[in-house]
Formats: sequence, C-alpha cells, structure tokens
Amino acid sequence: MDSHHIVYLLGVLAALLAAARLLGYAARRMGQPAVLGELLAGVLLGASVLGLVNLGDQDSQQTAIFHFLQEIGVVILLFEIGLETDLVQLLRAGPSSTAVAIAGVVLPFAGGYFVCHWFGLGNLVCIVAGASLTATSVGITARVLNDLGRLRDPESQIVLGAAVIDDILGLIILTVVSELAEGKEPTVAIIAGITAVAFGFLAAALVLGNSLVPPLARWFSRLAVPGILTTFALVLAFGLAWGAEMAGSASIIGAFAAGLLLRRTPQIHEIEKAIAPLGHFFVPIFFVVVGAAVDVRTFVPHGAAGWLTLEVGGALIVVAVLGKFAAGYVPFWFRGKKAVIGVGMIPRGEVGLIFAQMGLTAKVNGEPLFSPGLFSAVTLMVMVTTFMAPPLLKALFQPVKGEGGA
Amino acid sequence: MDSHHIVYLLGVLAALLAAARLLGYAARRMGQPAVLGELLAGVLLGASVLGLVNLGDQDSQQTAIFHFLQEIGVVILLFEIGLETDLVQLLRAGPSSTAVAIAGVVLPFAGGYFVCHWFGLGNLVCIVAGASLTATSVGITARVLNDLGRLRDPESQIVLGAAVIDDILGLIILTVVSELAEGKEPTVAIIAGITAVAFGFLAAALVLGNSLVPPLARWFSRLAVPGILTTFALVLAFGLAWGAEMAGSASIIGAFAAGLLLRRTPQIHEIEKAIAPLGHFFVPIFFVVVGAAVDVRTFVPHGAAGWLTLEVGGALIVVAVLGKFAAGYVPFWFRGKKAVIGVGMIPRGEVGLIFAQMGLTAKVNGEPLFSPGLFSAVTLMVMVTTFMAPPLLKALFQPVKGEGGA
Repeated sequence: MDSHHIVYLLGVLAALLAAARLLGYAARRMGQPAVLGELLAGVLLGASVLGLVNLGDQDSQQTAIFHFLQEIGVVILLFEIGLETDLVQLLRAGPSSTAVAIAGVVLPFAGGYFVCHWFGLGNLVCIVAGASLTATSVGITARVLNDLGRLRDPESQIVLGAAVIDDILGLIILTVVSELAEGKEPTVAIIAGITAVAFGFLAAALVLGNSLVPPLARWFSRLAVPGILTTFALVLAFGLAWGAEMAGSASIIGAFAAGLLLRRTPQIHEIEKAIAPLGHFFVPIFFVVVGAAVDVRTFVPHGAAGWLTLEVGGALIVVAVLGKFAAGYVPFWFRGKKAVIGVGMIPRGEVGLIFAQMGLTAKVNGEPLFSPGLFSAVTLMVMVTTFMAPPLLKALFQPVKGEGGA
Repeated sequence: MDSHHIVYLLGVLAALLAAARLLGYAARRMGQPAVLGELLAGVLLGASVLGLVNLGDQDSQQTAIFHFLQEIGVVILLFEIGLETDLVQLLRAGPSSTAVAIAGVVLPFAGGYFVCHWFGLGNLVCIVAGASLTATSVGITARVLNDLGRLRDPESQIVLGAAVIDDILGLIILTVVSELAEGKEPTVAIIAGITAVAFGFLAAALVLGNSLVPPLARWFSRLAVPGILTTFALVLAFGLAWGAEMAGSASIIGAFAAGLLLRRTPQIHEIEKAIAPLGHFFVPIFFVVVGAAVDVRTFVPHGAAGWLTLEVGGALIVVAVLGKFAAGYVPFWFRGKKAVIGVGMIPRGEVGLIFAQMGLTAKVNGEPLFSPGLFSAVTLMVMVTTFMAPPLLKALFQPVKGEGGA
C-alpha cells in the first residue's frame, strides 16, 4: 500500500471517529446508550450504505488494518472493564455466573438446532447454526453497563462473569464445530484438554500476576519517566491478550485479566486516566467495525427464498432471545433483578458473526455449509440481538445519577 | 487475515512497545536521546536481526498494518509538536527558515549529484541519488528538541520551520524526479502549480482554522461529554493530515497545522494531557518501524562491488552532512547557535528511505535505476545521518533542567 492510500485511510478514520461521536451523542440525547449510535454509524459507513469502511475483501490490506484496530479496541475496552472490576466480587458471583453461562449455551443451541430442523435443514447445518446462537458479546453488554454506571452491581458481576466464561465456551464450541465441519470427530479427551488449557492460562495469569504486577508497577512509577506506566499497562494488556489466545482462550479474556491485576496496584488511578484517551480513540472503532460488517442489503427479501430467510431469521431471533433470557433465571438462589442478567446475555455481536462466517466458508462435498439465505438469517439474528440489548438494558436498569460516559 | 494472526500481531506490538521503552531508557541512561534507543530497537526487531517486525513484503497485510500505525505515530508526533509551537514565533523565524530550507536542498543535491558523477553513474541516477540527499526528517529532530526541552528556543523555531518547508519541497522534488524517472519532462508551470496548491492549503487551513477552531473547541468543552475534546483534536489532526496530503503537501504538515490551531484555544492543556498517552503509544511505533526498515545485512561488503558500495556511501554521507550543516550558516543575520540549525537538518529518516525505494523500483529500459549496491549506499547514508543527529544535537544543545521526557 503506498503512502497516499495510507493517508486516505487516515481520512476514513477521521470520518469514522466523527460519525461515531455524532451518532453516539444523538443516541444519548434520545435516551439510548451511546454504543447504539456507534453501531449505527458502522452500518452507515459500511459497505451496504456509504462504503467508506469496506470490509468485503478479506484479503485486502484495508480490511486487515480495520480488523487490527478493532481488535485493539475490544482489548482496550475489556482491559478498562477489568480495571473497574473487583476480582473478589467477581469470584463470589462465580457459581451464579457459571450456571448462567452453561444454561446460556445449552438453551439457545437446542433452540437453534430445532428451528433449523423444523425448516428441513441437514444435521451439520443445524449444529453450526445452533452454535452461532450460543455466543455472547461481552463487549456490548460491558460497555452498556459501564455507560449506565452499573458495572459494580451484583447483576452486572454475574453477567460479566458469565460472559467471560461464555467467551471461552464459545471458542471451544467453535473448535469442535469447525472440526465437525471438516468431517472430523473430536474426542472427549481433546475437548477436555482444550478446556483445561484455556481456563488454566487464566488461573495461572491471575495467580502469578497477583504477586508480580504490584511490585513491577511500584518500580516503574518510581522511575518517573513520562508515560512509562501507560506503556507497562499496554504491554501487560496486549501481552496477556496474546498469551490467552495462544492458550486457546480469547484475547479479550487476557486483557480483562490484565485489568483485574492492575486494579490491585496503588497506581490504578494514574493508569485509568492514561488509558481513557486510548479508549476514546479505539473503542468506538470496535463498535463501528462491528456495525460495518453487517450488509443490510442481504435482509431485503427477493422472492420465495428471501421470505424463507426472514422466516428462519425470525424464528432464530425468538429462540436466541428466549434462550438467553431464560438462562438469567437459572441461578434461582440469586435475589436481584434476574431479567437484567438474561437481557445482558442477549447480544451476539462480533462473536456471532464469526460463526456465521464459518458457516459460509466451510464446505461439505464442495458446497458451502450455509446457503446465502441461511447466512443472512443468522446475520439478522446477530444484528437484532445486538441492537435490542442496549435499549432493553437501559429500560430495565436505570442509570446511576452523575455517571454515564459517552 | 484470521483472528489468530491478528492477535499474534498484538503480541508483536507488546514486544515492540517494551523494546522501545527498554532501549529508549538505556539510551537516556547513557546520556543519549531516547529516540536513538527506539531506532535501535527497530533495527533489532526488524528483518535483518530478529525478524519480528517484518516489512519485507510490501503487499502483505502485516506490512500495511505497521505502516498505518507508523503513519498515525508521525501524525500524532507532529500534532504534539504543533501544540507546543507558537505560530507567531514560527512566522517570525520565516525568512531564516526559508533560507535554511532552500540551501539545505540545493547544497546536498549538488553534492550528491557530483559524487555519483565522480563514480561514473548515469545522469538520471545521479539526479535521483542527489534528490535523496535533500530530505529532512522533521520527526527525528523535533522529537530530540522536545526531549531536550528546547523546542521554544529560536534555533529550534528556525529548524522546525525549515524542516516543514523542506518536507513540502521534498514532495515536490519527489514528484518531479518520479516524472523524470518515467521518461517525462515536467514543465515549470506544472511544478509551480503543485507548489502553489501545497503551500496554499497550509495557508488556507491556518487562516480558516484560526476563526473556526476556537469556537468549536469552546462548544465541545461545554457539552461535558467524556473524551469529546480528544475526539475533536484527533478528527482535526487526522482530517487536516488527510487534506494536506490530498492537496499535494505532506500529511504531517496538516497534523502540525492542527496542533498550531488548537494551541490558541483555552482548552489546550486538557487536549495536551489527553493526547500524551496516545503519543506514548503511537510515537515509539513510528521510530521502531523507521529502524526496522533498515536491513543491516546490505552494508556488509561482498567483494569489489561491496567495497564500492561503502566508498559511494561514505562519500554521500560526507556531502549529506556538510551540505545541511553549511545550510545552517546561510541566515547570516541570525545571532544564535548556527551549528544547531545545521545539525538539526541532518537526519534523513523515513523521507530519505522513500527516495531510495523509488530508485530501486523505477525502471529505465527494463533495468532498475539504482543497482543493489547504490541502494545500499543511499540507505547507509540515510541510516548514518539519522543516527548521528540525536547525539550531536544533544552535545551542542544542553537539555533544559527539569525537562526532557522519554
């Protein structure tokens, strides 16, 4: 890519930041979370409307740049959420989180599988479509809870824990499903191994980091070199994100762990202040790129196949919402707002899109696993669940006064 | 690029930030500017040593990502320098800056041309090689002056102004030379047109911005939305960088102008504080990628051709240094340290590498314009001038006590 094209992308980035702010601000003025405006800004800038943020060609350098900025965005978002989260409180919510996470995988999967069966689709297709309903986009929910100033409420702790567990479960399901799609049969031993390594890395990072991170932070802050704590925080966040991914867990879980660890240092406020501008830059990029990945043209019905797409999509939306919502009521011992938990688990976001993409690219006997219509139906489900969660959460969970960033 | 590869690059980024900090800190402990350590970190991480920051394949997605982050880095650096620079003082230094800039183009060009002629190279080859000596890397010098806390000294104002003018002149020369390399003959009218548009954009941006930016900044700061001033500053910097490039000027000049404009708002301190962490993240990436672009293996002489490379390279270094150094003495009316001005103009940095690259890719009768040996010689000149300037500047210009970040 020549320098002229690189600077062109700098102009696109300026337009992206401005549009995200503008629509985020408009959403807030209409009583909605800012993230809703940012997602809409993505749809507007994306391939289906203005075509400024074009992610159509997976092999292009431009797509790679946007996906990399998006990844930094979600890593910094989860790092910031980690900085706000108390590890002890999170662990106390552990049993409830685990129950919600497991039910939130089993119920939507079963629902999605049966919907596809009902419409006469093949067994493997039903499995992949069902799997795409198991995802939870922790980014969307965490951002909304943070914007509402509700991140430390017990409901939020359960949702956050469940979403983190769900993200690891989702990756394990993705591995299993892609093996199945390639015609292989994964054994129980292999699945258990993947699960152990993924959760083991997280546990090891938290235990080791707990004794290493505070003295390092103290030592760096004594050096009195401008910006050294910023670099330390970023290296820890990116490093653990990388390590978590390599261990078969998700990068954002590593970034979340880095935040949890730095929260326990006396330098937490300095770090929070330094990371905030990076968040203001990178986090909107994440949501805009999520929005830009949606091609609204595929939702317009063309003939009988188009209407079938809407029927399948509609049925998937119903089971996707009901499955996660019901999961929120599984921890019957919890005495808070169970509806908030279920709604918090609804958005599929970028994780759901990855499943949809896999269904489109995986081939069985030379044919793509998902027909274009089914791909559209799954994408519609991802889109609707992602867009409905912020206003629903806001309606159920009043913002704390004086809080609530954009 | 799949998500696994994207997270791998996140790990590379963590290593890059850590290495830049470590070597930057080591350089400071040895009494050198931090930027020298960051450039060395780039050489270490680059293709010729560790191969972690690999920029060899121009068409790869990884190279595009690093070049984009590098571009953001230099844009934020020049934006920060603009925030520190007083426009009135800069304009007052205008006549001196212009004299230094013009002499700093003419003298090195003539020197480089004659060196190549002496070694029996063709006319067009001599023109392109001479042109590569005219570049000035305003980034390197501005960063060192800023680290020394000397950015507001009259010498620094002249260097900064001259480097800005030189950057526009360099782009015009690049246009002319690449037309010549393609066998075309650019007319005086065309060159005058390019020059007028390039300088005209800068003037228009400053005049229009002067009446638009302060009320906008006041309006945004009244909205009291967290981070809105950060977004405004970034949109202005990226937007003007984009506009400047489209007008045939350099993107970094647009970013510099954005900084100059925001300096005149009452919100300057808030903006400076918010941009600092972004600078701590992006600016080292710029210098590391500049360092990583150098392949030290090409400097090792192999046989007679290898020694000739070193001879040509050595002669080019001598005229490159003397030409810029002498240019510092051209504004005879200035009563400050003229040696500082000349030394400040010495580093060629990434601009010099662009010329070298053009010499390698431009073809005349199917043959590359630069032989591999001449390309190495020009790269060696860029490298030596870039690495020698920081310690020389530091030796000539004592740091102001209490200042000097890393």
